Parts: sequence; C-alpha cells; structure tokens
Amino acid sequence: MPQRAVIREVGPRDGLQILQRVVPTATKLAWIRGAYDAGQREIEVGSFVPARLMPQLADTAEVLAFAKTLPGLTASVLVPNLKGAERAIAEEADLLLVPLSASHAHSLANLRKTPDEVVAELGRIRAARDAAGSRTRIEVGMSTALGCTIQGEVKSSEVVRLVQAALDAGVESISVADTVGYADPAMVARLFEQVLKVAGDRFHTAHFHDTRGLGLANCMAALQMGIRKLDACLGGLGGCPHAPGASGNVATEDLAYMLASMGVETGLDFDKLIALRGQLAGWLEGETLHGSLWRAGLPRTMRPQPEEVSA
Amino acid sequence: MPQRAVIREVGPRDGLQILQRVVPTATKLAWIRGAYDAGQREIEVGSFVPARLMPQLADTAEVLAFAKTLPGLTASVLVPNLKGAERAIAEEADLLLVPLSASHAHSLANLRKTPDEVVAELGRIRAARDAAGSRTRIEVGMSTALGCTIQGEVKSSEVVRLVQAALDAGVESISVADTVGYADPAMVARLFEQVLKVAGDRFHTAHFHDTRGLGLANCMAALQMGIRKLDACLGGLGGCPHAPGASGNVATEDLAYMLASMGVETGLDFDKLIALRGQLAGWLEGETLHGSLWRAGLPRTMRPQPEEVSA
Repeated sequence: MPQRAVIREVGPRDGLQILQRVVPTATKLAWIRGAYDAGQREIEVGSFVPARLMPQLADTAEVLAFAKTLPGLTASVLVPNLKGAERAIAEEADLLLVPLSASHAHSLANLRKTPDEVVAELGRIRAARDAAGSRTRIEVGMSTALGCTIQGEVKSSEVVRLVQAALDAGVESISVADTVGYADPAMVARLFEQVLKVAGDRFHTAHFHDTRGLGLANCMAALQMGIRKLDACLGGLGGCPHAPGASGNVATEDLAYMLASMGVETGLDFDKLIALRGQLAGWLEGETLHGSLWRAGLPRTMRPQPEEVSA
Repeated sequence: MPQRAVIREVGPRDGLQILQRVVPTATKLAWIRGAYDAGQREIEVGSFVPARLMPQLADTAEVLAFAKTLPGLTASVLVPNLKGAERAIAEEADLLLVPLSASHAHSLANLRKTPDEVVAELGRIRAARDAAGSRTRIEVGMSTALGCTIQGEVKSSEVVRLVQAALDAGVESISVADTVGYADPAMVARLFEQVLKVAGDRFHTAHFHDTRGLGLANCMAALQMGIRKLDACLGGLGGCPHAPGASGNVATEDLAYMLASMGVETGLDFDKLIALRGQLAGWLEGETLHGSLWRAGLPRTMRPQPEEVSA
C-alpha cells in the first residue's frame, strides 16, 4: 500500500449531472467549501457542455471561479469537445478532462463521435491550450474501459490503442473509468497492467462505480497496481439515471475510511466529511444516497477513546 | 485467483439469530431447499443454544434433519459449548462450529468464559466426539479476530496463540471472522499470513461483515492469501441488532457475482439466487436486506444475449 493517496471528489459534476433537479449555485459552493474544509484538494466542479443539454451544470464558470479562490485546490472540469475545452482554458481550470469512450457504441451514443474522432479533437484541444499559453492540464478519461451496457465487452487492446493515441495527441494524464460498473478486481489488474505499460506514471487515476458492490474491491486492485488517485462522490452519488436507487460512484467517505484504516494518508477529516454528507442529504432531499460508514461510524480502534475514569 | 471457491451460506443461523421475529420452520426449510437448488452445498442451518436464549433457532434439530436429506449438502451448526456439541453430535451435523473470541472482553460478554476456558471446552468437545464414534467435524470460528467493539484492538499474536491452542485441543478446521466489521484488506492479509503459518490448510474459511462497506474487498484479500471458502448471507442479513439498518454479512449474491465475474467457479445459479432473495424479502417483510446485484442485475457481458435478428 502507498503512504499517501488522493481522493478526487467528482460529486459536483458526476453526482449532480444525473439528477433531475438543478442544484442552486450557492449549494454547490457550500459543498465545495465543505469538501475543501474536510481536506479535499482535488474537485471536479462541473462541465462545460451546452446548458440546454445539461442545465444542472450551466453554472460551471461561476462554480469554477469560486473553487479557484481556495488555496491549493486543483479544480477540474469535464469537457466533451474543443468548444468546452476553450471555455475551460478561458476560465483557467487547473485541469480539463475529456471523456474518451473505449466502446465505439457508447462513444457514438454519448458524443456522436467515434473514439478516433475524439482523439482527433484531443489534438485540437492540445493545440488550443498551447496557443493560449494556458497552464490548464489535459487529461483523458478512458470511459467504458471495462465494459459497456450497449456494446457489452470492450477489448483491452482497444483501450490500450486509444490510450496511446491520446498520449500521441498531447494528453498529459490518463484516468481509466468503469463507467457502468462492470469491473471486477481481476479485470482491473489485467487492464491496468497493460495501460501502465504504455502510459507509465501518466496513468494515475481510476474511477469506479459501485453499481454491483465491487467499487471498493476495485479500488484496492487499482492501488495494488500502483494507482494513487481515485475518483469518488460523497454519499455515493452518480448512479445511472435509468436505474433508480442503483449505487453510483464509490462513496468518498467509505473509500477514505478504507484508506485510513490501512494507514494510507488522504488528509481527510472524517467528522467533517460525515457532517458534510449530512448536509448533502438535506440539500438533495428525496435522492438516494449510498455508502456505509455514515451509518456505522468509525471503528472504536479509529476513534480517540475517553480517558479511563480513575477509581 | 483460484479456479474454484465455496460460499458457505450462513443466513439461516447468522442472519436469523439477530432478528426480533422467529421465522417459522417451514420457511427455513424452504430457504435451505432454495439455496440447495441454487447450487449451495455448505449451509449453516442453526445453533444448538438454549431456546430461552435464542428462540429464533429453537428448531435447529428439525432444520438440521431436513438439511441432511439433501444429497451432498454439508450442514453445519454453531454450538457455544459441550452441551450444544453433544446435541450436534447426536443429531449428526456434518460440522459443528465453536466460536472462540480472540477478544477477552467479547468472550466474557458473549459466552461468560475466557478464551482459554473455551479452548479447554474444545478439548472436551473433541473427546466427546471421539467417544461417540461420530463423524461430525469440529471447526473453530475465531471471532473478533480483527477487532472488537468492546475491547477495541485485538492483537494478532493473541489470535495466533488461540488458533494454535485450538488445534492442540483437537479442532480440525479454523475459520476467521471479522465479527464486528473492523477489518480492512491490509489487516486481513497481515493476520491471515500469520494464521496460515500455524494452521496451514486447516485454515480455509473467512467470515466478513460488510458493516463499513469493505466486505467484498476483504473477501478479495482473503482469496489472495489462499482462502477458498467464504461465509455469506443471502441479502446481506446478519447485521448487529444494536445498529438498525447497518449492513450485515457479505451478501451471498454479490460475492457470487464477484467470483463468477473473475472466472472463479462457485456452482451457483444467479437467476435462482436472485429469485430466492426475492422470496426471502417476502418472508422477512419489514427487515432491511442489503446487497447490490439484485437491483443492478448481471452485466450484459455475463448474460446470454438474444440471437441477432437477421435483416
């Protein structure tokens, strides 16, 4: 196990985008402030997509501007194309993340582009970033890398080919996502080994959903392969909009607990995280939150014990 | 990963004993029949404890008698002491399982005996079994082996000492239980390595609770250490009676899914398991069941696809 790992909070983007409701900007700022106060230093704050497609994230520029006032916070945004990337660059996001579906079918359904057309767009995004003299870093999120609800199996050779193509197009880091919750720990180990061979330490982030309960087991497999950054959503938000009640992303608080229990430092404060989860439950009244730690609490072995009362 | 692993269903004992209600014998038989039909070949069917202490399991002799009519089924019972063991032997259980708390405080609270007094009882149980010419095998379940809600930390040296003592007393197999859901995968790896050193292949079963969401990650760690049998409860039953809604044991169906996805054979039929879970939810109306697979269903990659319709 590593000495230290980073949990990137993706709730304000991945968690909120699937909700029917539009969460007020002030609530998003309160969430980001709370996550920051609990020790989170990487947060995906939104997405630059057309507001008519995703009204939930229409205020991303404003949310990003707030996030940038928090010292030492890496604020990332998701962008589907050059147009979104240009906004991310203009608004000075620390990182822009472009999803690249390894599933041809998912890529067409989600972005109306083939994976190779997305790779071509990556080249244009890199050129735009360089031309702007911007410091915004470019990450590819290899989505449906471990299976696809439309296509079914996704070949690891295709994932590896696209990772290489993305790197060739000028992408600076790679994250790999089990977008639909099909992964198991053995699959993770096999795929990650292959991706590491081509990407080396530019591949450092994994993104797991807990759709079938394997989220934390998959995180363990990723850590064992040397991955040091894991995406998660407070309260396990981020399920599929077509599967009401289904688990979403790995829950930030449960992942933080697993890491802390193993002595892996994350810099996170549990009391603050759990309190923030309580606030989130209030902000999102009626939505289903997930995770286990909030109910069970920390083990006695991880809580400071009161002084023994002397006789 | 191993080619094959066994999931021992402990729901009829560990799952039902914490419920306020007493489940009718006929329901237990239907559950056991259903589990058998779904491919389960090891089931913990009850416990020989005084009926006034645990009325939920007062019909264990009858349930065991039924289980023994199912060809090839290994029916185990939990017994707290010699008296219970004598009943298990008389009723010809295939296996009797004696809990031995590694936590001194838990042992006193649970059995009113120190761990070493339980070890002494194990010697008497072995003698009784041998004197009866019985084929009932004797297993120790090392409980609170990874932490205790009363005592807090449990030293692995104490677990190892007690495992050795139990083996010396004539016990034939060892299971190790995270009774209170304090374990993490790194802890499991460390402890199991030590227990394997003294017990070798007599240590082959692990028992995890999912109290804080780490159940399946801990199962993975156990498998990686060479453990080939895992306890689980259908629907994740078996939580602590003092923590309403808290997750209980690892859910049989989720563990079966993780194993199947990795190509580890369990002999279980998912459609039947999920249907049985549905029945269980009806039998236990009002109780909280857990697990993820029942809601999400198998991935497309694990379901037979309909033939392509020709144009």
